[in-house]
Amino acid sequence: MKAISILGSTGSIGCNTLKVVEFLGGFRVVALGAGENIGKLAEQIRQFQPELVAVKDETCAEELLRRISDFKFQIPKIVVGEAGLIEVATHEAAETVVSATVGAVGFVPTLRALEAGKRVALANKETLVMAGELMTKAARESGAEILPVDSEHNALHQCLRGESRKEVKRLILTASGGPFRAKTKEEIENATRQEALNHPTWNMGDKITIDSATLMNKGLEVIEARWLFDFSADEISVVVHPQSVVHSLIEMVDGSIIAQLGVTDMRHAIQYALTFPKRKNCQLEPLDFAKISQLTFEEPDLEKFPCLALAYKALKIGGTMPAALNAANEIAVQAFLDDKVRLSDIPKIIESVMNEHETQPVVNLETVLAADQTARKKAIMDLENLEKTAAAILR
Amino acid sequence: MKAISILGSTGSIGCNTLKVVEFLGGFRVVALGAGENIGKLAEQIRQFQPELVAVKDETCAEELLRRISDFKFQIPKIVVGEAGLIEVATHEAAETVVSATVGAVGFVPTLRALEAGKRVALANKETLVMAGELMTKAARESGAEILPVDSEHNALHQCLRGESRKEVKRLILTASGGPFRAKTKEEIENATRQEALNHPTWNMGDKITIDSATLMNKGLEVIEARWLFDFSADEISVVVHPQSVVHSLIEMVDGSIIAQLGVTDMRHAIQYALTFPKRKNCQLEPLDFAKISQLTFEEPDLEKFPCLALAYKALKIGGTMPAALNAANEIAVQAFLDDKVRLSDIPKIIESVMNEHETQPVVNLETVLAADQTARKKAIMDLENLEKTAAAILR
Repeated sequence: MKAISILGSTGSIGCNTLKVVEFLGGFRVVALGAGENIGKLAEQIRQFQPELVAVKDETCAEELLRRISDFKFQIPKIVVGEAGLIEVATHEAAETVVSATVGAVGFVPTLRALEAGKRVALANKETLVMAGELMTKAARESGAEILPVDSEHNALHQCLRGESRKEVKRLILTASGGPFRAKTKEEIENATRQEALNHPTWNMGDKITIDSATLMNKGLEVIEARWLFDFSADEISVVVHPQSVVHSLIEMVDGSIIAQLGVTDMRHAIQYALTFPKRKNCQLEPLDFAKISQLTFEEPDLEKFPCLALAYKALKIGGTMPAALNAANEIAVQAFLDDKVRLSDIPKIIESVMNEHETQPVVNLETVLAADQTARKKAIMDLENLEKTAAAILR
Repeated sequence: MKAISILGSTGSIGCNTLKVVEFLGGFRVVALGAGENIGKLAEQIRQFQPELVAVKDETCAEELLRRISDFKFQIPKIVVGEAGLIEVATHEAAETVVSATVGAVGFVPTLRALEAGKRVALANKETLVMAGELMTKAARESGAEILPVDSEHNALHQCLRGESRKEVKRLILTASGGPFRAKTKEEIENATRQEALNHPTWNMGDKITIDSATLMNKGLEVIEARWLFDFSADEISVVVHPQSVVHSLIEMVDGSIIAQLGVTDMRHAIQYALTFPKRKNCQLEPLDFAKISQLTFEEPDLEKFPCLALAYKALKIGGTMPAALNAANEIAVQAFLDDKVRLSDIPKIIESVMNEHETQPVVNLETVLAADQTARKKAIMDLENLEKTAAAILR
């Protein structure tokens, strides 16, 4: 039995991971880290009987205990906050840690898992965006493997299997283009929360769905790819492919292109990350070529989707700039989800934060966290200013 | 300097091989085998100065000698016929032999190259169709490698690089569908030689272009794939993909699909076969995603294209049946190119030959050659009967 821990077990990737574990067999779920979705977590505990669970805070812990008090097996140890997530991420028995929290909260726990030499199945791209340098260094030093769960990076990982790094000319990430691919700049500016959450091909969490609508998700993925596979910004391209059938491609020096295709279900990538280097039979229906019938490709429109250009810019600047970009984006997206700003305000807030950010080299965790905090504060200030301006206009 | 020999140097693959060799550098062309295109061969000799050349017969040899008598370097040794091609295929210095003759003529020379332990860059699919068992056995015993130059098999070879055989569920060969993909059965029956030679995506020799129009080319490729990669008929699928951008795909047990894409220029596959396991920079423009814009896929229509079904049938029967299929096809295609039969007569002749063929296990070269000869005689008889019937109708 392979032992695994899951950070973010009640989210979309977390739940799918448990489905894969259930289907595959041969896995023991030793620790689960969640946030506030205590009902779902209680169900997961009943089914998978972990030894350890982490929740957001004491209130959540109490509620969880109430819900599982009738549990006839050993009640798991319950821990809270970031320290709790770190405990889940470094559980001694766990060989594989699925890092599937959303945003910066998974950052330190994931780093600790890598330092502890765990295989990390990484769905939390913000982690690499914030501190790819630290993460990959930790993995190198401990001998930990990072297996990407993002479908694009998972595809790249598959394409790169038989290839030598120096014979790969560039990585090509596909982007669905999100719900606003065919919309005008004006339509995007006035897009509602519901429109932005209506992703054409993937069913995912709210934050990543908004990131997909602005193409920031692809920008974060470009930065993620830089760290996962050691390619420079110039060697990573993005092509819009609305059907999301081709999950990504690599171009070789001899002009050959290798692509990975599949159905749009995260369980594929999760299973791959859990079973690598082996491949196991899958519970999903395979891709039906007769049904896909048509695949299209087009260049991304950086004017309509400035977030993608901002991400490339942050990657080229390097140091703490990607962490600042990521922090500003998290604040701005949350404000959009809270109906406080328009979709088109997101890149404006990010750009404003980037313009003020004093880039530092990433020397340690503290540098990154400081950059993250400063950028968040600045983004919140920008938001307040936006709200004041809006209020003034309405007055 | 790597030494190479080319069987079929004046054909489409042969000429492209020399272009690749010229571009790459680091290769020494030690032997060239051609047929009757003496003008082209003389040019090649002037440029590449091989030590040995083979031509069809004495008449060709004399003409060649006349054409290169003013040659200021060492005049190559000139040999003739099948024995000559065998000498080219087994030239002591040659590490790689490009097998690019058309049809059965390359069969014995290619077998001899494999027995001699040469790397064979194989463009002549008939060789594997006739006697895949013998060819792969010879390669195993001598430690020779077979590198496929057919774009589809070359693509499969690339897709399979990082994968384990038992984790591959099936091979998926793409087919352009040829010039008659969207035509009715009646239009195909009455297709002219010119229409059949007008391939939508690939520029190739006459025989293979007709085979593409009947989908027999794909049928031969299914048999070829069986031997190159050790998959059964049930594990090899064909999907029609008119743009010929995706050169082929593999489906893994976990549902993931790996594809190889590229421009439709044989130099890619040739270069790959010459440089494997390395990849080198290429002289061709890479695939332009903005230009391809759309890729489509559909199931092949076995009723409109019975040749594909016949090839699957021959592969399932096994033994000498694929050799009989191949022989009948060669005769029938030549008759079509000579305006003696209609396109729709090709599968009829093949089916008639297959119905009469007494399948033998492939124990040695002689079994295969005997099956080939018997099938050819039967096909020629069928042709004569067809002509008689046609003459009777016209009378």
